Amino acid sequence: MVVFQKIGIIGLGMLGGSIALDVRRLGIAGEIIGASRRASTLRKARENGFVDRTTTDVHNLIRSVDFLILATPPKVITSYLRILAETNPGLLTTDVASVKEEIIETVNKYFGKSHWFVGSHPIAGSEVQGLAGSKSSLFVSRAVVVSPARNSCPAAVEKVKEFWLALGARVIQMDAREHDYILAVSSHLPHLTVYALVDTLKTVKNPHLYQCLGSGFKDATRIGKSNPQLWAEIFLANRKHLLVHLASYKRRLQRLESLLRGTRRNLLTRYLKEIVVYRESLDGKK
Amino acid sequence: MVVFQKIGIIGLGMLGGSIALDVRRLGIAGEIIGASRRASTLRKARENGFVDRTTTDVHNLIRSVDFLILATPPKVITSYLRILAETNPGLLTTDVASVKEEIIETVNKYFGKSHWFVGSHPIAGSEVQGLAGSKSSLFVSRAVVVSPARNSCPAAVEKVKEFWLALGARVIQMDAREHDYILAVSSHLPHLTVYALVDTLKTVKNPHLYQCLGSGFKDATRIGKSNPQLWAEIFLANRKHLLVHLASYKRRLQRLESLLRGTRRNLLTRYLKEIVVYRESLDGKK
Repeated sequence: MVVFQKIGIIGLGMLGGSIALDVRRLGIAGEIIGASRRASTLRKARENGFVDRTTTDVHNLIRSVDFLILATPPKVITSYLRILAETNPGLLTTDVASVKEEIIETVNKYFGKSHWFVGSHPIAGSEVQGLAGSKSSLFVSRAVVVSPARNSCPAAVEKVKEFWLALGARVIQMDAREHDYILAVSSHLPHLTVYALVDTLKTVKNPHLYQCLGSGFKDATRIGKSNPQLWAEIFLANRKHLLVHLASYKRRLQRLESLLRGTRRNLLTRYLKEIVVYRESLDGKK
Repeated sequence: MVVFQKIGIIGLGMLGGSIALDVRRLGIAGEIIGASRRASTLRKARENGFVDRTTTDVHNLIRSVDFLILATPPKVITSYLRILAETNPGLLTTDVASVKEEIIETVNKYFGKSHWFVGSHPIAGSEVQGLAGSKSSLFVSRAVVVSPARNSCPAAVEKVKEFWLALGARVIQMDAREHDYILAVSSHLPHLTVYALVDTLKTVKNPHLYQCLGSGFKDATRIGKSNPQLWAEIFLANRKHLLVHLASYKRRLQRLESLLRGTRRNLLTRYLKEIVVYRESLDGKK
């Protein structure tokens, strides 16, 4: 199994915290060092045993670990990539951001002919935020997409894959562009449409409304509680692909509206049936 | 507690079956008689003890019970209402359909100055269909809307309310029109937008797509497995209100798209934040 002397985790939110828990549980690192902008998060991470120690000196962290995980919000990653490229491009590094093309392009720009950065995206997000939302074994059976940059060293790609496999994940290697195109429809569009749905409900003023919300509504809109800062970032970072799928979605909504206005029950039933058969087929797929 | 000699249930799907289970468990009826168009359903209902006996003679059933529950798909209810109005308008009767205005209008048309029909809608639907999807205690803490018709006898309204309260439900009395307006946004619009979302995914041909579906997508589209025949009926029966909310939804989607195209992260974040705060507030409400 892959083992490191010192793993550094910058960003101790739900994902960074969950990674720390598993690294410790599985004995993957001799030492886990956490970094975060918030002193209160660092204190909690130490007190609750997520990490062995914490630091606010990122430059020093980058020089002293043998595996670095960037688990901060996507926008902040760029600044760490610059420091990394300038000070220690041979450090095995990955990230956990939901949008990969922007990051990989930045890596292609900052880094030289051979480097040890490899992008990752564990598909294990949650509407629960922060270190308190961390879970042990979060990645077991979850998909983790690994996206190399143009000049990622092949040995680095293998190491990053081994790391996620050690955490129990199913690893899929994918080009950053393809990843973003797929995630735009499998994750980002659902979030966008759910936000719009919750906003529609929000404008209805009726005292009985709350009493009429069933479990269907609650489950369907659970992702409507996801962190607004993070999701504004994700939407904008993946705008290009998201707008393509949004246009497709609007056409399908229009088709449904036409069938509604047409009132031909058989046509509507047949259309819905195809959708239901497809949706049911997804449950069996891995 | 409300007790009946003989309860008749026409339609032994998920709701009819779940009602039968609770009526038996709680001893609400001396005898439960089930009716269904399918012989196989009748057999299963008898063999698994959902009902004491079954019949295919609806006319006789309507003459011999003291409480009748119409748990068939909505479109079929109309024909039973006609038989009921002609043969036994004084029989305490309710239904379980998700759209109420059409049914109540039919009742207003068919029935005389005083009758014992009172509409119900237990908000306890599921994407799991048929008798096999029935659950004991399904209605505990669930909302059941009770909608009287113009000439429903007040004593009948009280009896129907008592019945649902006996099953553990929270009972809300509401005008059929108001019910349909609210359910159009709390349940029917979510189903419509989820069907459109699943259909959008369906058109994406990529071998990695299935691997990139997280629990967020699965939960958000669980209602996309709901019975297409039933939902085509519901959408068309509540078309008027549904189209109003759909227009509102499309405006909100447009607003999100504008914010995406505008790329001003702060504006988008602020907009999403208001939605998230609202969605979180719904979890605490009953």
